[in-house]
Amino acid sequence: MKTTIARIAIRDRDLGQQARAHLDNLTKPPGSLGQLERLAIELVEMTGQAFPAVVPPAVLVFAADHGVAAEGVSAFPQAVTAQMVANFVGGGAAINVFARQIGAQLEIIDVGVASEFPGGNIERGVVHEKVRPGTANFVDVDAMSRDEAERAIDVGIRAANRALDAGCNCLIVGEMGIANTTASSAVLAVLTGEEPARVVGQGTGIPQALLPHKQTVIERAIAARRPDRSDPVEVLAKVGGLEIGAMAGAYLGAAARRTPVIVDGFIATVAALLACRLCPGARDFMIFGHRSQEPGHAVALAALNAAPLLDLDLRLGEGSGAALAFPLVASATRMLAEMATFDSAGIAGSESRE
Amino acid sequence: MKTTIARIAIRDRDLGQQARAHLDNLTKPPGSLGQLERLAIELVEMTGQAFPAVVPPAVLVFAADHGVAAEGVSAFPQAVTAQMVANFVGGGAAINVFARQIGAQLEIIDVGVASEFPGGNIERGVVHEKVRPGTANFVDVDAMSRDEAERAIDVGIRAANRALDAGCNCLIVGEMGIANTTASSAVLAVLTGEEPARVVGQGTGIPQALLPHKQTVIERAIAARRPDRSDPVEVLAKVGGLEIGAMAGAYLGAAARRTPVIVDGFIATVAALLACRLCPGARDFMIFGHRSQEPGHAVALAALNAAPLLDLDLRLGEGSGAALAFPLVASATRMLAEMATFDSAGIAGSESRE
Repeated sequence: MKTTIARIAIRDRDLGQQARAHLDNLTKPPGSLGQLERLAIELVEMTGQAFPAVVPPAVLVFAADHGVAAEGVSAFPQAVTAQMVANFVGGGAAINVFARQIGAQLEIIDVGVASEFPGGNIERGVVHEKVRPGTANFVDVDAMSRDEAERAIDVGIRAANRALDAGCNCLIVGEMGIANTTASSAVLAVLTGEEPARVVGQGTGIPQALLPHKQTVIERAIAARRPDRSDPVEVLAKVGGLEIGAMAGAYLGAAARRTPVIVDGFIATVAALLACRLCPGARDFMIFGHRSQEPGHAVALAALNAAPLLDLDLRLGEGSGAALAFPLVASATRMLAEMATFDSAGIAGSESRE
Repeated sequence: MKTTIARIAIRDRDLGQQARAHLDNLTKPPGSLGQLERLAIELVEMTGQAFPAVVPPAVLVFAADHGVAAEGVSAFPQAVTAQMVANFVGGGAAINVFARQIGAQLEIIDVGVASEFPGGNIERGVVHEKVRPGTANFVDVDAMSRDEAERAIDVGIRAANRALDAGCNCLIVGEMGIANTTASSAVLAVLTGEEPARVVGQGTGIPQALLPHKQTVIERAIAARRPDRSDPVEVLAKVGGLEIGAMAGAYLGAAARRTPVIVDGFIATVAALLACRLCPGARDFMIFGHRSQEPGHAVALAALNAAPLLDLDLRLGEGSGAALAFPLVASATRMLAEMATFDSAGIAGSESRE
């Protein structure tokens, strides 16, 4: 983790200025492509390339279980984590569909699934990097040890490096883990100092009536574990999750190699905040895919000063919202590389009226 | 026009209910794909197909000039309309880039360009359906005759039919026409009864200081022409534009063949409102691509009770925002057709907790 963080450089602002000038010469009223123009400049600054490429993208989905599921905080039983991993391998989940649509390389990483997979302990098509079979119930004991938390982060760094070594130019990072909105809310409450009431939500769809219970579970856990909010690894170890650590690691790995990552919804954004607490410079390589329905997402986005591309009332996870946003990221790079300039197209600019 | 309107049927709500049930069986928490799920149901209802296809899409760009440009209401000279048509043919405009990205068939239709094209009167790669070489300045006289307005609408209907006959399954309708935000604001003010001040904006980027002038031009035109707002063809003829009529025709043509259209920004939405005043049932086949920066767009969207998919501060036109939204429309159809069900994937549903 430390070597990766040491490699994270700052954005190339000079090249961004050149991109701004180029955009204003393209055959459109200056600024008329709005956020797409700002996104293009950010991609130039991130990659240090005047005409950045984001294809092909890679989708990394980290799966892990959560001991806190025993508290009855999810609408689904814990076995669904392993079942959904099998569904990812079979190609039938939402993230499979959207990954195929955008031509992404998809990798499923088991960083801590607790149940046996439907086909046995080893599921073909899954990268086995299980740090431990699920976290402990953090109401009673720390979710994991500090060493395990660091190993989870390293799993994510390795996954990012594999994708980049394979030639991918943009990372989409997703997750699967029953009860992981509970762990994410706990991490977010600690990192931001917000009341759990403000960052707790219905997750996969628990009834409104169960929200106070979920909130109490988080409050009890924070009171019992007392994580030091200035120590992100400790926060992850005490009230976090293995996939949350791995996602943070993937963001760090991408940033160290100047590769844009598209951050998905609530859990992914909490992991992004964790990564930025580990290394503030990681923020510079993040694009935010969408605004989730989960109430804590707004808090996490605000903590990162982030404005997502899409707002479609999604609350699925898996990286699905980030994958849906990818075509816009690709559009930004294509606009930059493929549009004609006023000169090359022989078009009168707006100045010619005078 | 009349035969086309007579063919516009209502949506298949029963099939929509079946799609809702199918979506709830897919391997995701029910409703967790938010607006994408609602979009999928709408596409099912529009097309009357349980698993609708939207690929390949067609992009139709209608180009025409506006006599009112003589009033100095645009940041660009009128010659730019013809120059941009040549740019479309050359493949260098934003809509070319985004059309290529989504694998769209692109057709450029000259419904009323006033200037000669850079290569002469006939530009190769353009469908020549010029009703007249630009409208008259509607501050002084009617923009066009009633007969010309109807012919412009028919140009759009024919273009839609060509695209559908060629096998396209979704239409994206764009425009190019210097000064066409002025005509659109006039049409919108008349159709909705709004004050011109509320529907006038900077278009391609006139200085803020010129806005009162643009507003006065629209007010003078409406006062002089006095179009009957209950007669959409008269409104189009008196203060509209040829490409605005053609766009309205394209929407009607798509609706008559149960094909979804993605409506672009301000001008496109004013044309959509015109189409819906000609035939309210046309609304059922419209998807709204994005929310433009142009202030009148919010008024036009509200008049159509429309919520766009994207909000990216775009203000370019050409169909660009609709083309950028197309991948989401494709995602909705893929979700429906490609995702596994809980049963087929052997996954415990949320009920199994009880």
